[in-house]
Amino acid sequence: MSQSKGVVVLAYSGGLDTSCILVWLKEQGYDVIAYLANIGQEENFEEARKKALSLGAKKIYIEDLRQEFVEEFIWPAVQANAIYEDRYLLGTSLARPCIARKQIQIAQKEGAEYVSHGATGKGNDQVRFELTYYALCPQIKVIAPWRLPEFYSCFCGRSDLMRYAKNQAPPGLYTKTTDPAAAPDTPDILEIEFKKGVPVKVMQVSEGTTRQSALELFLYLNEIASKHGVGRIDIVENRFIGMKSRGIYETPAGTILYHAHLDIEALTMDREVRRVKQGLALKFSELVYNGFWCSPECAYVRHCIAQSQDSVDGIVRVSVFKGQAYVLSRESHQSLYNEELVSMDIHGDYEPLDATGFININSLRLKEYHRLQGKVGSARR
Amino acid sequence: MSQSKGVVVLAYSGGLDTSCILVWLKEQGYDVIAYLANIGQEENFEEARKKALSLGAKKIYIEDLRQEFVEEFIWPAVQANAIYEDRYLLGTSLARPCIARKQIQIAQKEGAEYVSHGATGKGNDQVRFELTYYALCPQIKVIAPWRLPEFYSCFCGRSDLMRYAKNQAPPGLYTKTTDPAAAPDTPDILEIEFKKGVPVKVMQVSEGTTRQSALELFLYLNEIASKHGVGRIDIVENRFIGMKSRGIYETPAGTILYHAHLDIEALTMDREVRRVKQGLALKFSELVYNGFWCSPECAYVRHCIAQSQDSVDGIVRVSVFKGQAYVLSRESHQSLYNEELVSMDIHGDYEPLDATGFININSLRLKEYHRLQGKVGSARR
Amino acid sequence: MSQSKGVVVLAYSGGLDTSCILVWLKEQGYDVIAYLANIGQEENFEEARKKALSLGAKKIYIEDLRQEFVEEFIWPAVQANAIYEDRYLLGTSLARPCIARKQIQIAQKEGAEYVSHGATGKGNDQVRFELTYYALCPQIKVIAPWRLPEFYSCFCGRSDLMRYAKNQAPPGLYTKTTDPAAAPDTPDILEIEFKKGVPVKVMQVSEGTTRQSALELFLYLNEIASKHGVGRIDIVENRFIGMKSRGIYETPAGTILYHAHLDIEALTMDREVRRVKQGLALKFSELVYNGFWCSPECAYVRHCIAQSQDSVDGIVRVSVFKGQAYVLSRESHQSLYNEELVSMDIHGDYEPLDATGFININSLRLKEYHRLQGKVGSARR
Amino acid sequence: MSQSKGVVVLAYSGGLDTSCILVWLKEQGYDVIAYLANIGQEENFEEARKKALSLGAKKIYIEDLRQEFVEEFIWPAVQANAIYEDRYLLGTSLARPCIARKQIQIAQKEGAEYVSHGATGKGNDQVRFELTYYALCPQIKVIAPWRLPEFYSCFCGRSDLMRYAKNQAPPGLYTKTTDPAAAPDTPDILEIEFKKGVPVKVMQVSEGTTRQSALELFLYLNEIASKHGVGRIDIVENRFIGMKSRGIYETPAGTILYHAHLDIEALTMDREVRRVKQGLALKFSELVYNGFWCSPECAYVRHCIAQSQDSVDGIVRVSVFKGQAYVLSRESHQSLYNEELVSMDIHGDYEPLDATGFININSLRLKEYHRLQGKVGSARR
Repeated sequence: MSQSKGVVVLAYSGGLDTSCILVWLKEQGYDVIAYLANIGQEENFEEARKKALSLGAKKIYIEDLRQEFVEEFIWPAVQANAIYEDRYLLGTSLARPCIARKQIQIAQKEGAEYVSHGATGKGNDQVRFELTYYALCPQIKVIAPWRLPEFYSCFCGRSDLMRYAKNQAPPGLYTKTTDPAAAPDTPDILEIEFKKGVPVKVMQVSEGTTRQSALELFLYLNEIASKHGVGRIDIVENRFIGMKSRGIYETPAGTILYHAHLDIEALTMDREVRRVKQGLALKFSELVYNGFWCSPECAYVRHCIAQSQDSVDGIVRVSVFKGQAYVLSRESHQSLYNEELVSMDIHGDYEPLDATGFININSLRLKEYHRLQGKVGSARR
Repeated sequence: MSQSKGVVVLAYSGGLDTSCILVWLKEQGYDVIAYLANIGQEENFEEARKKALSLGAKKIYIEDLRQEFVEEFIWPAVQANAIYEDRYLLGTSLARPCIARKQIQIAQKEGAEYVSHGATGKGNDQVRFELTYYALCPQIKVIAPWRLPEFYSCFCGRSDLMRYAKNQAPPGLYTKTTDPAAAPDTPDILEIEFKKGVPVKVMQVSEGTTRQSALELFLYLNEIASKHGVGRIDIVENRFIGMKSRGIYETPAGTILYHAHLDIEALTMDREVRRVKQGLALKFSELVYNGFWCSPECAYVRHCIAQSQDSVDGIVRVSVFKGQAYVLSRESHQSLYNEELVSMDIHGDYEPLDATGFININSLRLKEYHRLQGKVGSARR
Repeated sequence: MSQSKGVVVLAYSGGLDTSCILVWLKEQGYDVIAYLANIGQEENFEEARKKALSLGAKKIYIEDLRQEFVEEFIWPAVQANAIYEDRYLLGTSLARPCIARKQIQIAQKEGAEYVSHGATGKGNDQVRFELTYYALCPQIKVIAPWRLPEFYSCFCGRSDLMRYAKNQAPPGLYTKTTDPAAAPDTPDILEIEFKKGVPVKVMQVSEGTTRQSALELFLYLNEIASKHGVGRIDIVENRFIGMKSRGIYETPAGTILYHAHLDIEALTMDREVRRVKQGLALKFSELVYNGFWCSPECAYVRHCIAQSQDSVDGIVRVSVFKGQAYVLSRESHQSLYNEELVSMDIHGDYEPLDATGFININSLRLKEYHRLQGKVGSARR
Repeated sequence: MSQSKGVVVLAYSGGLDTSCILVWLKEQGYDVIAYLANIGQEENFEEARKKALSLGAKKIYIEDLRQEFVEEFIWPAVQANAIYEDRYLLGTSLARPCIARKQIQIAQKEGAEYVSHGATGKGNDQVRFELTYYALCPQIKVIAPWRLPEFYSCFCGRSDLMRYAKNQAPPGLYTKTTDPAAAPDTPDILEIEFKKGVPVKVMQVSEGTTRQSALELFLYLNEIASKHGVGRIDIVENRFIGMKSRGIYETPAGTILYHAHLDIEALTMDREVRRVKQGLALKFSELVYNGFWCSPECAYVRHCIAQSQDSVDGIVRVSVFKGQAYVLSRESHQSLYNEELVSMDIHGDYEPLDATGFININSLRLKEYHRLQGKVGSARR
C-alpha cells in the first residue's frame, strides 16, 4: 500500500462538486478530512456525514458556525451598512472567511498540511477562502482542484449554471424568498432595537412576539423577509479577478437590517462622523467582497467602524411588504434630532439672521470665481 | 406718493407663504414682479396669475421650465446615480438652481436690483436659491423675509407642517404616489433605453407604446411609478445648516431611473472607472444637496461624470410593482460582460492557474503581516 | 457709577491689538479678565502682566500651555502627517483650540458670561477660537471686536501687514528660522525615536546628547531646525472663509518631525492600512485648519489615526542641513521590510512564477476593454 | 538548421542583464530584435547598437522617445502633482509605459509574436511593462526571463544591488545629482511659466536666458537641479506586488516642477475644484506606480485632471539652492487671489458681520452634539 501524501482538510458541501473532489483527492493519495460548515443553509447534515464517509473521508467535522457567523461577520457588516457596488449586500462574501477560519483551526488541530475547497478558478470564492487560509496560517498548502487541469479537464462544465446577463432570470433561481407577486397582502410590522449599531431585539408588533438572541432574531428576520419576497437582486457585478459576472442574490434578513440600521444611524450619528464612516464602509465592502476579511486593513477598518457605532442605539419600526422593507418611524434617547431646533414656530437658540451670514460667506468663493471669469473674459467650461 | 425702493423679482408659488411675502414687499415700498416657475408641479397657473396681480404684483412671469429641468438638471443626476446620504434622490435640490437661474435672467432683463424667495430660515432651500443667485449675479441683492424678524414675527409659524421623527407619517403626506398596498396587482414592464447614460426611449412592453422626448418620457415614468407607489421615502437627513430634519419624499420617475441607470452602467462601464466615478458622484450629490449647483467644483464634477458616460448605452427591462422597481435584465452593444470569459465550461483566454499566482501575490502582504505579529509577539487588535 | 455689563475673559497677546480691545471692552462696561497663553512664543510675560493690569484688567491669567500643546495637539498632528493643501504644517491651527480650551476653563471658573479674542473678521483664527468656545460651552457669548463696526471703524487697518501674493517676501518676515543661505555648513545628524507614532527621544549623534520629555525634545528640535533654516514656506492658501490668502510660515520642529514620522510609518505600517489612514489624515488636516478640532468628527478621526499608530515604533536618522531635513536611514523591530523577501538573490517563499499569474489576472480587465473598443469600433478617449 | 520559434522584440538596455537575455533568447531558438529606448539616460547608443548586433540580434531599433516622454507622460504627472506615498515623484514609473508602447509598435510593425524585458520577478517594472503590452495588444506573448527558473537559476543574483533599509545609502548611489553639501553657495533663480498646468518657458533670472520647447526646458531644469543637488530621496516604499522595498531616487527637474506647479495651481484654482482634483491625483499616482497607465481608469483620470488645468496659467519664481527648490513668488492673470478682499484695511464687498453668522451656523452641530452628550450623560470618546 502506497504512502499517504499527507492530510488534507476539505471544505465539503455535501454536493456533487466537493464529493468529486473528495474522491479525486483520495485517488491522488491524500488522507481526506471532510469539513462541513453549517452557516444556516438548508442541508441534511446527517446524510452529508454518511456520504462523506462512504466516499472515503477519514473523518468528518460538521460545525455549527451560525452564531459566530451572525455575531462576528454579519453584525459588523450591518454596522457598516456594507454594500458592494451600490447593490450587493455581501452574504456569501461574509460567509467565506467564517468557514475558512474554522477550516484552518481544524487543520491545525489535525496537523494537516493541506486544505482544499471546491470553488471555481474564475470566481471570487477561491480568493476569499485562500486569502483567509494564508493570513491565518502562512505555511498552509492549498489544493484548488478547479484550477488544476488534471482535475477540471475530467469534468464537463456546469452548463446549467451558466447565466447570460441579457436574459431574464428563470423564476426557479430564487430559492429562499417568495416571489413578491405571490407575497401576502398584509404587511408584517416589526420593531427592531439596536444597541451600538447591532440589533438586539425584534418585535412583531401585531403579535407582540419578540426575538432577542443574535441567531434567533436573525433567523426570524430571514423568515419574515422570505415570506414577503424581500431581498432579491439580479445584477451584473465586477469580480475581483477582473471580469464582469451576473449574480442573482437573495439576502432577506440582510435587506431589512440594512434599511433599519441606515435609519437609526441617520438619527443618532453626527453628519460629519457619518461622512467619514461612509468612506470607511465603502472600503470595508470592497475588502470583504475581494476576500480580504483577515487583512490588517480590514481589521483596522472594522475597528474604526465599530468605534463610530457607540451611540447608534434606538428602535426602528419597519413594514415588510411585497418585496420591500419600508421604514415607518424611529426613536432613540441618543437622537440628535431636535424638535425645537427644526421647528418653524420656535426659534430657540437659532437665529435666522445667522443664515444670512452663512450664505454670504459661502457665496464669497462663487462670486470671486464669477469675477475672474468676467475679467479673464473666457468662456470656461 | 412715496418713491419705490426698487424692483424685486419674487419667486412666487401661488401659495399662502409667497402671497404674504408679495403683499409685505409691496408694503415695504418695493415694486414686485412675481415669477412662477412650472417645473411640473400640480398648479392652476391661470389662477395664480390672477392672484398675484390682484395682490399687487406689477407683472407676472410664468415660465415653463420643465424641459430644461429634465434635460439640464435631472439627466446629470441620473448619470451620476446621485443620492444623498444613501437614500434621498435630490428632487427638490435639483429644482432650486433651475428656478433661481431663470429668476436671475428675469431680474437682469427687468433691471431689478433685488430678488426674493419664500424659503424658511432654517432650511436648505434658502441656501440653494441664494448661492445660485450670487454665483450668477454677484451684485444681486436678496430679500429673504423668513430671516427678517420684522417679517416673521408677524406670522404664526406653520405648526401643521411640524414633523416629529419618531411618529409615523400620516398617509395624507404622500401626494404624488399611490400607497403601495393599494397599488395594482399586475406590474408594468418597461424597457428603458439609454444613450450616454441618459434615457432616450421608454417602451411599455405589453402595450408596445413608446415615449421618446426627454420631457414626455420623464412624465410617463412619473405616471407609471406613481400608479405603483414607487419612490416614497421617510428619512431623517442632515441639513447643510447643521441640523437634522425629517423628510418625506416622493421621487417616482427618479427611483425607476436610478435603478435602471445603475444597472446599465454596471454592464457597460469598467470596474475601476466606475469606482472613480462613484467618488465623484458622492461629491456631486453633496454639492447639489447643499446648494452648490452653480459652483466651479460642481461644474467640474459634472463634466467628469458626463465624460464617464460615453459608453453607457443599452436597454434595461424593469418591472414596476407594489412600490418597487425591479431590474429584470439588460443588454448593450457596449457590454463588458463576456459570456465566454465567465463561463465555467469554456476557458477561452483565461488560464485558471493564473489565479493561483494572483492569490499568492495578494497573500504576500498578509503573510508578512502575520510573520511580524508572530515575531513581535504582541496580540495586536 | 454704572453697573458692569458682565465679565469677559479676553485672549490677550500683550500686543497692540488686544491691548486696544482690552481698553475698548472696559469702556463698553465689561469687567475684563485678561488671559495670556504661553505656547512657546517669544514674550516678556511679566511685562505683559503689568501692561494688562495697567490698562484696566481686573485680573490676568498667564498659563503655560506648552506641554499640553505639544502632547495633546502637536503629537496627534505628527501621527497624522497632517498637512493642509500639500504644504502647510498647521502650527497656528493647532494652537488655537489649545488656547481656546483653557480660556473656556477660566471663564467657567470665573463665572464669566463672555469671552473675547483679537482675531480679525476675515481670517481663520476667529473660526478656530469660536468653534472651540461653542463646542465646549454652547451657552458662552462671544465678543469679536474686529467684526463689530463700532470697534473696527475706530482703527486704521494694519496696512503694514498687507501682503501681495506676487511680491517676494521681505527677509524680515521670517523670525524663527535662519536664512538657509546663512545656515551652518555642517549638518546636525539626529536620531529620533518613535513609539506609537510619537517621538520619545532625540539624540544628536556626534555629541551624543539626548532629549526625552515631550516638551524638551520639541524645543530642541525647534532649536536645531531654526539654526539650519528648516521649515519656511511662502504659500497661497485657501481660507475656510472662502478667500485665498498668502501665508508665510515657519514650522521648524514640525518639518523635521513630518519627514521623520512619514519615514518610520512607511517602514512599519501595512500598505493598505496606510492608504486608509492617509485618507483620514487628509480629513484631519482640513478639520484642524478650518477650526473643527473640538467637533465629533475630529475626535473620531483622531481616534482612528491613533489606532493606526500601534506599531509605528523605531528610530529615524535625519540630517538637518541648509533648509532641509534629509532622512538617512531607519530601523525598527516592527519593520515590515523583509530583506530576504526583497532580495534578488534569494527567492525564499516567493515564487517568481506567481507574478505571471498576478499580471495576467490584472490584465484581464484591460484586455476586455481593448476587445470592446475594437468591437464597437469607436475611437474613445 | 532548426526552425525559429518566432520573433521576439526585446527591450534592450545595453547592460549586462538584457545582454544575457538576448543571448539566452537566441539560444532558445527565437529571432531577437533588440529595441533600445532613449528616454534621456546616459548611454553610448552607438556602442549599444554594435553590442546588440554582435550578440546576435537580427536588428536593432534605437528610438529617441525623449520628447514624447516629456510631453505625454511627464507633463500629465506635473499637472497632477503626482506623488506616490507622499514622497516618490514617479520618474521610472512614468518611463515604463512610454518604453513599452513603442515596443508594441515595433512588434506590430515587425509582425513579432513575442516581446521580452529584463525586469526582475519581484519588482514593479515587470508589471508596468506587461500591463502596457497587454492593454495595447491583448494577444501579444510575453517572455519574462527573470521569472523563468530555466533562466534565473543560471545566474547568480545581483548581490551588489541589495539594499538594506536600516543602512545609510553609500554616496555613490546617487548619480544624477550633486551632494547638496557640495552644491554651489549661490542659488539659481528661475522663472517658470505655465500654461494649462504645463511649463512652457523657463528663464534664468540673473542671466536672462530662456528655454521654451518641452524637451529643452526639461533638460535645462534637470541640469540646474542636478547642479544644486535637488531631488534626492531615500525611502521605503510599498511595491504593488505586496512587499516593502527601499528606493533611492533622484528626480531633479521633477522636484522643481512639482513645487512650482503646486504653487501656481494654488493661486489659480478654486479651493473645492482643487480638493476634487487632489483625490483624482492620488488615484492617478497609484495607478501609474502600479503600472496601469494604459488602463481605462487612468485614461479617465488623466482626462479629468487635464480638464482641471484650464486656468492654471502664470509664472512662478523659484530659488534652487543646496538641495532644495524654494518658491519665492508667483503671478497670474488667472489669479483668484484678491488683494482687496483679503486686505485688513478695505472691507470691499466683505461684511465682517457675516462671519458671525457663518460661525454660528457652523457651531450648531457642535452645540447639538454637546447638548446630547450632556443629556445622555455618558463620557463618550
